Amino acid sequence: MRMVDIIASKRNGNELTDEEISFFVEGYTKGEIPDYQVSALMMAIYFRGMNERETLTLTNVMADSGDKLDLSAINGIKVDKHSTGGVGDKTSIALTPIVAACGVPIAKMSGRGLGHTGGTIDKLESFNGFNVSIPTETFIRNVNDIGISLMGQTADLAPADKKLYALRDVTATVENMSLIASSIMSKKLAAGADAIVLDVKTGSGAFMKTLDDSKALAEEMVTIGKGAGRKMVAVISDMDQPLGRKVGNALEVIEAIDTLRGKGPEDFTLLVKTLATYMIMLGGKASTEDEALKMIDDVIESGKALDKLAEFVKAQGGDPSQVYDTSLLKVADKKKVITAEKSGFISRIVCDSVGVSCMMLGGGRASKEDVIDLSVGIELLKKVGSKVNAGDELAYVYYNDEKNLDAALDKLKGSYEYSESAPEPQKLIKEVIK
Amino acid sequence: MRMVDIIASKRNGNELTDEEISFFVEGYTKGEIPDYQVSALMMAIYFRGMNERETLTLTNVMADSGDKLDLSAINGIKVDKHSTGGVGDKTSIALTPIVAACGVPIAKMSGRGLGHTGGTIDKLESFNGFNVSIPTETFIRNVNDIGISLMGQTADLAPADKKLYALRDVTATVENMSLIASSIMSKKLAAGADAIVLDVKTGSGAFMKTLDDSKALAEEMVTIGKGAGRKMVAVISDMDQPLGRKVGNALEVIEAIDTLRGKGPEDFTLLVKTLATYMIMLGGKASTEDEALKMIDDVIESGKALDKLAEFVKAQGGDPSQVYDTSLLKVADKKKVITAEKSGFISRIVCDSVGVSCMMLGGGRASKEDVIDLSVGIELLKKVGSKVNAGDELAYVYYNDEKNLDAALDKLKGSYEYSESAPEPQKLIKEVIK
Repeated sequence: MRMVDIIASKRNGNELTDEEISFFVEGYTKGEIPDYQVSALMMAIYFRGMNERETLTLTNVMADSGDKLDLSAINGIKVDKHSTGGVGDKTSIALTPIVAACGVPIAKMSGRGLGHTGGTIDKLESFNGFNVSIPTETFIRNVNDIGISLMGQTADLAPADKKLYALRDVTATVENMSLIASSIMSKKLAAGADAIVLDVKTGSGAFMKTLDDSKALAEEMVTIGKGAGRKMVAVISDMDQPLGRKVGNALEVIEAIDTLRGKGPEDFTLLVKTLATYMIMLGGKASTEDEALKMIDDVIESGKALDKLAEFVKAQGGDPSQVYDTSLLKVADKKKVITAEKSGFISRIVCDSVGVSCMMLGGGRASKEDVIDLSVGIELLKKVGSKVNAGDELAYVYYNDEKNLDAALDKLKGSYEYSESAPEPQKLIKEVIK
Repeated sequence: MRMVDIIASKRNGNELTDEEISFFVEGYTKGEIPDYQVSALMMAIYFRGMNERETLTLTNVMADSGDKLDLSAINGIKVDKHSTGGVGDKTSIALTPIVAACGVPIAKMSGRGLGHTGGTIDKLESFNGFNVSIPTETFIRNVNDIGISLMGQTADLAPADKKLYALRDVTATVENMSLIASSIMSKKLAAGADAIVLDVKTGSGAFMKTLDDSKALAEEMVTIGKGAGRKMVAVISDMDQPLGRKVGNALEVIEAIDTLRGKGPEDFTLLVKTLATYMIMLGGKASTEDEALKMIDDVIESGKALDKLAEFVKAQGGDPSQVYDTSLLKVADKKKVITAEKSGFISRIVCDSVGVSCMMLGGGRASKEDVIDLSVGIELLKKVGSKVNAGDELAYVYYNDEKNLDAALDKLKGSYEYSESAPEPQKLIKEVIK
């Protein structure tokens, strides 16, 4: 088998065989097939696509390319959740304690943030002493003991995907549905859960800008997951403006805790409850949506969800008192206000600009090595649809360093767009694919 | 300017700007842009194509990427010739002395053979002492003194094309008309001639298998050449069977000399005269085809063309007596005959198999480092259309080494196909594009 023939075959519009897919993925991972042949193949796939079988095979081969988490020692149906990423997306922090409190074991691997979107691990490190570098044995024991644990991606999950994605990123071959879906799903399959709930974002702040594309990606991932024997649900949710009202690590933890107390922002609360509903159902703890929703409301009202977060934080070395008193979470002391430049309705808040503004304050990483400031961030007082008068307060900016402050404020101001009439209200949950 | 944006732009179907084309070619040649980005771009070009302007710019930038021959010290219009390659193609050896004898200066760079097709330099080295490693000054002086000289590709002509072609070869991105045309033309432009006659082969033994593709390639190259200010003609000629009757280095020289004496095979003689006609016209020495043809017949009948070859050979250190007595050219002593396996008409002689058979005898290089045996080769007694009875002699095989002899004979036998009725006669000259 020669790589050049595999490239020519895909270029000519043929299906690749399972053997050909294994050959190139394994050869590339081992360094036996050079970058320049793989990038040419990726571009041929960009133009010719891959069918369901090819996509599933690629996903499985990548999932098998490195370590795989063995969660068999955990009792019950393990349900994972994946978000395609956005600004202000602190969902896991509120969602997982709720689901765990409802009896579904949560064994989650998470990553750090890069660029203008944050990462769950960084956010959780807002709790003093919180540690994600735990051995797999501790991770599994914690799930069995208290129903929830989270670890950093220390294991070498799907290294083929990592190498392939880095190559696609610099060769303009990211934007293919099969390649995107297999990249995400290979890591999820290697992470070992029995069921997966996907939160596929859609809109200007999402990787997929249109509902059609988001739906296509969601469907592709659901198909792959089912093909690999997983139970799957995908929720398509709006990312046309930041989620909730707070952006920044400690600020987002505070907002997640508020939500666990039943006092979260409306949009974020709805998303958390929707995702929780399907995780609980896939986990076999409820058979209808109503039943699941009732369980969710119960664990919030009773405080069990909040207690679960505290247990989780404590089990990983963090300070649980910060869960019960969010004033103990460190938020930057210095604060600036930005105000509306004109009167009218807020028609848009460009997610990426808000994310970049937070990054400029020190709350995000431009490169992997950057150390971030967990205490800075942005609080949005007005969201899309709000009527404002020129000079009204729009947002607070919490900062420590003056260095990039002006640029960050300008970026944030520039993220607001205005209209004379009220914009069409957007549904947060666009669709659910089962 | 970022390479990834250039790739994305072509991928999305945009035209590349001249600046973008220069950026990637120059960056790649200098090693500043990696292989894997360039191969992805080549695949995007495979699918999206390039327009006339893009193709001309790519050609010019590649032509400018290294040394360029300066032929301005040569008097008259310098006319070059290029063949897209085939089996038994000894055209330059008969053609250039004819054209030079008609007063058109010939300053030609040539290459060695690789794979199943031969190279002009190897063939000329059948003359004892013939030397192509001459300084540019000698090369130019010889053209001014005797009207003809030939040198090996010692100069670093179009290194960008060399690097790009090697990459395309292993990434299944060769087969794009613009890329093929610009690759050929970049070297021709760097070689400095004022006018170029192209011999574009068509058929099973050619790079372009169909007449339509050959025509498209010829038109693309003519357009590029004219765009770069060169006078251009392209002749499309048949390569559905080997050209002439002899394949192998010394054997082909003998056949070329026979042709200069007016005793060459019909097909080869026609091709040489056709190409010579257009070279003489582009060189300004005749204004009509008839006039040029008459000049050609004159220099053949008078022996001036043969004398020109002798002068040329002598000026480059070779033995001119071998021109006048071809029995002095060394042909292998040992000879085998292959015979017809069945009765009927010969319907096909697969060029590539004949070429590979000659290579197996030692007459061609499998890799650049191989030393070749100039004395071996094949003489075709019957060509396509001949009526044969089983057992009739089809070809002689001249060899020295028994080692691969059986395999070479089998390969040669396998190149013949038979039919019950006479095959449709094929025209040698398919079309002329001016």
